[in-house]
Amino acid sequence: MSLTVVGSIAFDAVETYAGRRERLLGGSAVHFSIASSFLAPTRVVGPVGEDFGEAEYAVLNNRGVETADIEQVPGGKTFFWAGRYERDLNVRHTLQTDLNVFEHFEPKLSDESRAADVLFLANIQPDLQRQVREQCPAARFTALDTMDLWIDIARDSLLQAIASVDCLIVNDSEIKTLTDEPNLVRAARKVLDMGPRVVVAKQGEYGAAMFTRDGFFGLPAYPVADVVDPTGAGDTFAGGFVGYIAAHADEELSEPLLRRAMAYGTALASFNVESFGTERVAALSGEEITDRVQELMHLTRFDDVPVPLRA
Amino acid sequence: MSLTVVGSIAFDAVETYAGRRERLLGGSAVHFSIASSFLAPTRVVGPVGEDFGEAEYAVLNNRGVETADIEQVPGGKTFFWAGRYERDLNVRHTLQTDLNVFEHFEPKLSDESRAADVLFLANIQPDLQRQVREQCPAARFTALDTMDLWIDIARDSLLQAIASVDCLIVNDSEIKTLTDEPNLVRAARKVLDMGPRVVVAKQGEYGAAMFTRDGFFGLPAYPVADVVDPTGAGDTFAGGFVGYIAAHADEELSEPLLRRAMAYGTALASFNVESFGTERVAALSGEEITDRVQELMHLTRFDDVPVPLRA
Repeated sequence: MSLTVVGSIAFDAVETYAGRRERLLGGSAVHFSIASSFLAPTRVVGPVGEDFGEAEYAVLNNRGVETADIEQVPGGKTFFWAGRYERDLNVRHTLQTDLNVFEHFEPKLSDESRAADVLFLANIQPDLQRQVREQCPAARFTALDTMDLWIDIARDSLLQAIASVDCLIVNDSEIKTLTDEPNLVRAARKVLDMGPRVVVAKQGEYGAAMFTRDGFFGLPAYPVADVVDPTGAGDTFAGGFVGYIAAHADEELSEPLLRRAMAYGTALASFNVESFGTERVAALSGEEITDRVQELMHLTRFDDVPVPLRA
Repeated sequence: MSLTVVGSIAFDAVETYAGRRERLLGGSAVHFSIASSFLAPTRVVGPVGEDFGEAEYAVLNNRGVETADIEQVPGGKTFFWAGRYERDLNVRHTLQTDLNVFEHFEPKLSDESRAADVLFLANIQPDLQRQVREQCPAARFTALDTMDLWIDIARDSLLQAIASVDCLIVNDSEIKTLTDEPNLVRAARKVLDMGPRVVVAKQGEYGAAMFTRDGFFGLPAYPVADVVDPTGAGDTFAGGFVGYIAAHADEELSEPLLRRAMAYGTALASFNVESFGTERVAALSGEEITDRVQELMHLTRFDDVPVPLRA
């Protein structure tokens, strides 16, 4: 079943303790689609400049990602982000953000992209997310990511966008900010009251938690000793999660299915951080992914053997 | 099999969004022993003042905790801590700390306490932890908690104390500080190289992770919507974890056994935060605990159904 993602396509300059890269292929739609491409045919919608060349298209096309809806802006430059991570990779400093062609981006979806069974609205301005959502009325499953900036400056539009999708996938701190509720369980319930039937809280090195109207699922991150570059881990997680759902879009959205989707997102995100940019995920084999999902299952499982309690 | 814990016994004054209590029974050894008492006969070693009365002893004795080694200091006052939590309960402000009788505490273990199969050294000065450890040479399993203060001002002694135990149970940030390693996997491996064969990283609202020489286990926290007072959650977790091991001290310390111990610690900690002080845990039934462990098992489990990947 087909999947369309609308979001940023970027060049990233990244510095971590492990080294420095001046021009990595990046952006939310890129990380997302490379991950989701392992699970479902994926179409990317987003703007690039004239500096976006064959080598960049090839990374996506080699993964079977459909790039026909990437809009190349004449005379434009691709979105650029530069950041530096401290030795503690949880601490990130943005050094430069040049929106370039992204500043005046107006998503135009082809008939094929509009016809997708599943739609992912990566982190872009909420008005644009709503426009895209309206262009895809037939999507069976829709999910949305956002960031603190939009919660602060475009809250009303964001709330409308959230109300129009099946699933919110954001950092746990953003769920708390959005709902002004410091307890994650209560915060997630508030989001479920807004419309979505699934809320996924990304928790960085701790993993992810999923809330539905009648369920909770917590999944730790896969333990990675050699984290090289965490950029794009959240988008890669979303790509695995939504991609798994897209691969099963003809099935009912059951709790076991959603949990497996969480596992694929977690496994793919763990690969993403092992190298700079998209390098590791773009080069994965299917077996590496299924092996890691299996391993994750074993690393998080316990069997209770009831013990006589001294009550 | 028997369990001895050495640590603080306190009166706590706690303020959270849910209310205020002026004089709660608290302290690491108290929270620990009330939790462990459901799993193994527990003896508490720690100092109290003359203000520690029948009502306080009764809370422990009603749970079957042996209090004969609680040292009541003539003319002394019990350790007192006052703190205020913000609406976001992850943010805590210490308002007052009166060490009182705890300042000159020198643990004196009775023959019965020394003979315990399992020993838990709660967070006290590392020199004292080492003295107690030496008094219990026959213990089959020993575990230790500590805090940033001792990492800062008594590092050498702490490292010796850690080298003398089977298990370190601390906050994940403390493992990183102790080893000067921001990646938890690498940090835990460094601790395993120091001597312990088990490292448990407490991660607050996110749960806990366990590292052994050949294993990893991650367990999310049980989702609690109504957190009233998080004080003592970490000690309660340790009580459940070490108590479960004490209950099985005649068995080999296998990975499945350790994982179940993590589940009992997590379940008990989730009850602890639901009320002020020891109120909730002290009043638990055995069935409530086993039910929550079962529920935790279901909330964290997924079954993989391999999906054909588009590699």
